[in-house]
Amino acid sequence: MPHITLNSAEPGIRGLLRYRPETGRPLSELTEVLLRGPNTLTPGERELIAAYVSALNGCRYCSASHSATAAAQLPGGMALVEQVRTDAGTAPVSAKLKTLLAIAAAVQHSGLDVTADQVAEARAAGATDLEIHDTVLIAAVFAMFNRYVDGLATVAPDDPAVYAASARRLIEQGYRPPPATP
Amino acid sequence: MPHITLNSAEPGIRGLLRYRPETGRPLSELTEVLLRGPNTLTPGERELIAAYVSALNGCRYCSASHSATAAAQLPGGMALVEQVRTDAGTAPVSAKLKTLLAIAAAVQHSGLDVTADQVAEARAAGATDLEIHDTVLIAAVFAMFNRYVDGLATVAPDDPAVYAASARRLIEQGYRPPPATP
Repeated sequence: MPHITLNSAEPGIRGLLRYRPETGRPLSELTEVLLRGPNTLTPGERELIAAYVSALNGCRYCSASHSATAAAQLPGGMALVEQVRTDAGTAPVSAKLKTLLAIAAAVQHSGLDVTADQVAEARAAGATDLEIHDTVLIAAVFAMFNRYVDGLATVAPDDPAVYAASARRLIEQGYRPPPATP
Repeated sequence: MPHITLNSAEPGIRGLLRYRPETGRPLSELTEVLLRGPNTLTPGERELIAAYVSALNGCRYCSASHSATAAAQLPGGMALVEQVRTDAGTAPVSAKLKTLLAIAAAVQHSGLDVTADQVAEARAAGATDLEIHDTVLIAAVFAMFNRYVDGLATVAPDDPAVYAASARRLIEQGYRPPPATP
């Protein structure tokens, strides 16, 4: 049960965006541009970084939700997402994505943990400055969302079908702010 | 030196908001509404939560910046901010703010660390659901900003006068997105 009385029964972040639309709107816009805006990283790769960081933070709702969204947009599907979550270092992703996932894991713990060597390795594997920037920001943004969702003890459904349905809707409609509650 | 080549010499978050205006705009809007929008918590109290979390995260730029902005808006000034940063449990703040700072400290570590008892104590001290919500979100947002600023190794000036000047400008003008680089 959530720590506060929300104004809907929507799970996870969705109930929070609806509860406080003043902050929900810029949060939705940020997520849309960062995970789905024009980018040399595919939406599936960016969702994978979000899922990976959310799993490291132990956020059940966010990791299930972004794992489903990543799986629906990556050729490797959920098997690949699970390999990354289990051991990103040996998962069959590109060398560039592997270095970006390592940076994301550092950020998950602390921004101060990102080393010049990690950044140099990403660059040597072909990552651009903007890709390194966006990776750090995605990992940082999920440090926020994970704490927001769990800090208020929002509900996380158990049924994977809920997250799969939500992923299909997100891929079609994007991270739009919720409509006003009637 | 920052890990990536920015397009300005601006320190901390300011250089990042300018580098990537697509994400800078919603981030600025979020900060403005959360720290300065209509609220039963004063701007000084909200800046104090931001400063406290940023100090716990060891983010030199953010803690100096929000400490200066909190100090400029609280009767206790920088002495009070430093007491809170040293030991929030014994600092001379209201009982309600003390319980909110305890929730913020839990969120700083993990959203999963916020307990029902902490929330009940905040409520018993007079905190509303919205104040509890905003406290969790402020702490979560600074989990993000601190990681973003340090994960890209942005510059943090040493001179306290820089942060004091920046605080005066923020209090006058708010957290607006930076103008486009000429």
